[in-house]
Amino acid sequence: MGAAKLKIACAGLGRMGKRHAINFLQRTPRAELVAASTPDEIEFQWAKLNLEPFGVQVYKDYDQMLKHEGLQAVIIASVTTVHAEQTIKAIKADLHVLCEKPLSTSVEISQSVLEAAQNKPDLKVMCGFSRRFDTSYRDAWSKMDSGLIGRPSVLRSQTCDKLDPSGFFVAYAEFSGGIFVDCSIHDIDLALWFFGQDCRVKSIVASGITAVQPVLRQHNDVDNGVGIIEFYGGQIAYLYCSRMMSAGQEDTTEIIGTDGKLTINMQPQLNLVNIHGPTGIRREAPTHYYDRFEQAFVCEANEFTACCLDNTKLPMKLASAVQAVTIGSALQESLRTGHKIWFDETGQRIARAAL
Amino acid sequence: MGAAKLKIACAGLGRMGKRHAINFLQRTPRAELVAASTPDEIEFQWAKLNLEPFGVQVYKDYDQMLKHEGLQAVIIASVTTVHAEQTIKAIKADLHVLCEKPLSTSVEISQSVLEAAQNKPDLKVMCGFSRRFDTSYRDAWSKMDSGLIGRPSVLRSQTCDKLDPSGFFVAYAEFSGGIFVDCSIHDIDLALWFFGQDCRVKSIVASGITAVQPVLRQHNDVDNGVGIIEFYGGQIAYLYCSRMMSAGQEDTTEIIGTDGKLTINMQPQLNLVNIHGPTGIRREAPTHYYDRFEQAFVCEANEFTACCLDNTKLPMKLASAVQAVTIGSALQESLRTGHKIWFDETGQRIARAAL
Amino acid sequence: MGAAKLKIACAGLGRMGKRHAINFLQRTPRAELVAASTPDEIEFQWAKLNLEPFGVQVYKDYDQMLKHEGLQAVIIASVTTVHAEQTIKAIKADLHVLCEKPLSTSVEISQSVLEAAQNKPDLKVMCGFSRRFDTSYRDAWSKMDSGLIGRPSVLRSQTCDKLDPSGFFVAYAEFSGGIFVDCSIHDIDLALWFFGQDCRVKSIVASGITAVQPVLRQHNDVDNGVGIIEFYGGQIAYLYCSRMMSAGQEDTTEIIGTDGKLTINMQPQLNLVNIHGPTGIRREAPTHYYDRFEQAFVCEANEFTACCLDNTKLPMKLASAVQAVTIGSALQESLRTGHKIWFDETGQRIARAAL
Amino acid sequence: MGAAKLKIACAGLGRMGKRHAINFLQRTPRAELVAASTPDEIEFQWAKLNLEPFGVQVYKDYDQMLKHEGLQAVIIASVTTVHAEQTIKAIKADLHVLCEKPLSTSVEISQSVLEAAQNKPDLKVMCGFSRRFDTSYRDAWSKMDSGLIGRPSVLRSQTCDKLDPSGFFVAYAEFSGGIFVDCSIHDIDLALWFFGQDCRVKSIVASGITAVQPVLRQHNDVDNGVGIIEFYGGQIAYLYCSRMMSAGQEDTTEIIGTDGKLTINMQPQLNLVNIHGPTGIRREAPTHYYDRFEQAFVCEANEFTACCLDNTKLPMKLASAVQAVTIGSALQESLRTGHKIWFDETGQRIARAAL
Repeated sequence: MGAAKLKIACAGLGRMGKRHAINFLQRTPRAELVAASTPDEIEFQWAKLNLEPFGVQVYKDYDQMLKHEGLQAVIIASVTTVHAEQTIKAIKADLHVLCEKPLSTSVEISQSVLEAAQNKPDLKVMCGFSRRFDTSYRDAWSKMDSGLIGRPSVLRSQTCDKLDPSGFFVAYAEFSGGIFVDCSIHDIDLALWFFGQDCRVKSIVASGITAVQPVLRQHNDVDNGVGIIEFYGGQIAYLYCSRMMSAGQEDTTEIIGTDGKLTINMQPQLNLVNIHGPTGIRREAPTHYYDRFEQAFVCEANEFTACCLDNTKLPMKLASAVQAVTIGSALQESLRTGHKIWFDETGQRIARAAL
Repeated sequence: MGAAKLKIACAGLGRMGKRHAINFLQRTPRAELVAASTPDEIEFQWAKLNLEPFGVQVYKDYDQMLKHEGLQAVIIASVTTVHAEQTIKAIKADLHVLCEKPLSTSVEISQSVLEAAQNKPDLKVMCGFSRRFDTSYRDAWSKMDSGLIGRPSVLRSQTCDKLDPSGFFVAYAEFSGGIFVDCSIHDIDLALWFFGQDCRVKSIVASGITAVQPVLRQHNDVDNGVGIIEFYGGQIAYLYCSRMMSAGQEDTTEIIGTDGKLTINMQPQLNLVNIHGPTGIRREAPTHYYDRFEQAFVCEANEFTACCLDNTKLPMKLASAVQAVTIGSALQESLRTGHKIWFDETGQRIARAAL
Repeated sequence: MGAAKLKIACAGLGRMGKRHAINFLQRTPRAELVAASTPDEIEFQWAKLNLEPFGVQVYKDYDQMLKHEGLQAVIIASVTTVHAEQTIKAIKADLHVLCEKPLSTSVEISQSVLEAAQNKPDLKVMCGFSRRFDTSYRDAWSKMDSGLIGRPSVLRSQTCDKLDPSGFFVAYAEFSGGIFVDCSIHDIDLALWFFGQDCRVKSIVASGITAVQPVLRQHNDVDNGVGIIEFYGGQIAYLYCSRMMSAGQEDTTEIIGTDGKLTINMQPQLNLVNIHGPTGIRREAPTHYYDRFEQAFVCEANEFTACCLDNTKLPMKLASAVQAVTIGSALQESLRTGHKIWFDETGQRIARAAL
Repeated sequence: MGAAKLKIACAGLGRMGKRHAINFLQRTPRAELVAASTPDEIEFQWAKLNLEPFGVQVYKDYDQMLKHEGLQAVIIASVTTVHAEQTIKAIKADLHVLCEKPLSTSVEISQSVLEAAQNKPDLKVMCGFSRRFDTSYRDAWSKMDSGLIGRPSVLRSQTCDKLDPSGFFVAYAEFSGGIFVDCSIHDIDLALWFFGQDCRVKSIVASGITAVQPVLRQHNDVDNGVGIIEFYGGQIAYLYCSRMMSAGQEDTTEIIGTDGKLTINMQPQLNLVNIHGPTGIRREAPTHYYDRFEQAFVCEANEFTACCLDNTKLPMKLASAVQAVTIGSALQESLRTGHKIWFDETGQRIARAAL
């Protein structure tokens, strides 16, 4: 066991790319980060300083990096627009892939990644959804799976970011695919996980407002959205996404079953400190999702590595990531058109008249 | 002040009727419960034992009771189906009225009560929504009204009952108007209160499932429902109602503004006790809404009494209660048909094509 | 039942006196407040305005009031220094007595009240400790009594007031008997209640500081104190009292048993509202003990009334109130001298050498 | 930076030793675990399997290990009885030392370690107290240090273990130095940290009971203890330690200042999941201190490594660890004798008569 480390490279060294690179370098004992690539000059200089001294070769060109001697796996942490292309290239180069979510904001392109992966069944190709690796979500899932709450029936879940007064997310909206694809996709993934990957969507409807950034309307996007997903089989997920939380990141989930309920993070907290002062009793909240999910990303790195080395089953299917994009896109479409969207039991869109 | 007590009578002595009668008898210093009526023999005997000794005259006939010497006001706590009729009769008899919610499950009938009341502008006619009298909701409203959270934009609210394994609510569903009219009407009322009584509904959509009582489908009803209400002006309320909570009553509300958020009852609790044992740390939840809102009902009795005696403005408008029924009925219709329902800015139903 | 109301009078109309008078007037259906007395001119005028119109005769002289026609019971809510004298006079006049805590700051005087009461066994004489009537404390006690936590072994309890920057409590310290007699007496009473009224004290030790009001040292008092009470039989209570809480009243108790633990009010809260803002998530705390215990005082009024009318057993023994003063005084003595104080199993003070 | 890793060895491979070894092997990027030693055959075999494949040389003899080529530092995680001896040997061998707490259960022996370290001022010698490396405690300390709560005046802290029905801790009590030296030493260290390392003890008093393990009395120990520490300068720490918690590890601290209060872990929680079921709403608690403080141990490993490599100041002084043993031993003595113990301002024990 001592010898066999997974030789892995990291594509993209933006905010998440840096974190993935460091996690694989320092916190993933069975992996060896051997290369990294970025077309960005500043990121490239960062890598020369922070990765190269530890034996990581730094590339400007992704395709060059794929040819790195002995490379076994790639983490795709580039901009969303190249996720699919880079993932497909890596698959073609016979490399395992851990791709940041989403595969693509396009359902068709996501589907093409899935097909590429299906052609190489020996490769481990995963689109990482951080909550699947979070101890609290896993504990809740296990409890549900053990029957503790009976049949899971309703899922409420939200992905709510702290308000960034710089409005960074407005520019971001142009490429993000919209708030349901960018944020709610985590909640959609939870629905697929908790209700089972075979659950089939019956209808989708969404609404939204631009409470703090009216300019988002230019991108057909909103800063606060709500949506309802009905599943065949009698389950409902209802979602809320927001860019407007004042206290911090508030990602909360409830799974309501016929015999009980599980909640995750009903009381957001940065840590275990409470502050008593003249205005009351206060606690701080995480500022970003990484404050909340840092350990989940470390876990993801380690589990992905183990699956590649030991040829074991990935903790989540790639098809599920494609389905999440499909649902997220439909929510975004419903938001844009105002229409409720119906699907038949095979997943085909249908027109539906009143009963 | 010592002499002037409001002479009031209570119509209906079922579960809530008994509570109203006792509250007006014992916990409303400025009111004098002088009469009560019920057509039910068991309730009648209860009243002979528990009310008559304190000077309350007990009637079997509502119309007779209205003629009680010196009567000034009536509480309507009968079955929902006679709320409107009894309220209108009392108005015609020049009596102030505190009517249990809802006025009616029918929009038209509710509207007729409003019209009857508008013909007697000197009378105080109120349809009581208990949360309006709850100290926590009032505190939240005041904080919002003071600008603490900026512009209120999204309201999440739920009315979730503890599962009653006897299935009592199935029989009840026949007359309740459905779960959105029976339960969510409280959350709808909160939306009208927090967003302002002049807010106008733009669209309504709802979904639901029968997770524990499939037989509810016979009444076009569900045991878990979710809905979204869009308002002109850029506000959204999204609701959840359930008859399936295992731990107890869970009525929770969040009001999200552009500069902050207020939550009410995010952690349901029966009292301030926590129990540490081998399975963890536990607290109990209220069993019924009355465990949660008892003091609100006492407050309601006292404030209604004061308004009648002092001729001051009621804390909530009757028109708002009619609007709540209108919205609740539309949610119920959307649940039944699967369709999203649109309104124009004057409140008229419209058909809406895709953008 | 309708006719038999307890005719009761209230002595003293200061802050608590007013509350007791109003509670017996308006929130105690089986009692009739017939009289009130106060030597204070301002309080007297308040009573003329607020009590007399409701049939309450107002006296300046306590002794005169005791002769009020048909009087059956008295609430003693005067300054602490006359509690004992007025209670004894009422007992001699064959009246039931509900006396505010403490009976006296002197053990001997408290004992003399107990003896006076023992001479009139038919009278109901109670020294009210509000927490005995609080639903949360009662729920905890019942759970403990049912065996839920095994054998109760350690009790942690604190009475912590919000800092009053006016320093009112400094002047008050001259007569209060000290912080352990004034504040911790509630926690001592809880120890006697939860460990059983027959538990016998083995040793007492206390320490304190003057963190915000050094001038308290003039009265041999402190603004923050801690104490340990050991009981024969192997139980320990440890206490904290403070006048320095910034957020509000924080009265918290833990009862630790061999099989579990019960906590009461580990998270002080004014109501069920949480406020999310840029500095985090915040809730408010009660400002005064009456915010926290108002319903307990109402309950006390009703239960005392019922015991008098129905000749049933009082919910707490007068002897226990005397024991609480004894323990509180010993804590205060230990604070002053720095010494640990020992008692033998009969309750006699003993000198104790090192083992 | 890439090249310079700290060559470190781990002495002792019991429960904590294994954790330290793995943490330095896998989670401390700047350290290289080069050796480990244990006299225990089972632990030795574990090391052959789990450490040797990663380049760690495994020794049976501590003295031999100290001679390992190029060794720079040692972690002492052996049984408490050899902590001091092994630490002194390592110091004499010019090695940096991270010693598990306590240095020794004897004040004199602890002092001798301090003296040995003072003779080699260039070496980094630290006795690790995990809470000093915990993010919540650090956040609280920073907030206090920034003046947020005014002058820290009262510290309440507890170290409470989940009941181990096997009674393992009874056998352990023979060597642990007693519950105050074994458990409360963490709380004592917090007092020294939050009140400042120069604070001087004025008096110490403690009491305890054997609620679940009467046999502990044979070792002059208890399963539940409380203690009060007064400091010159007007500060008080009061402590609770227990081996009897039913729900899990409950290590809670409050720091009360003249302008506010900070609490750490008032609501013990294993993770962010809550479970709603028929008996209420429940969360689980950590089972052991390592569940609670795992990340703190990782942080400790990394910070100790950085201090050795970069020759920076250690985050805590060794003298403070000696003072903690001194105070813990005095609490244990007070528990045994029943006496309160006094110190003068220079730290000398004094006899004290009544004021």
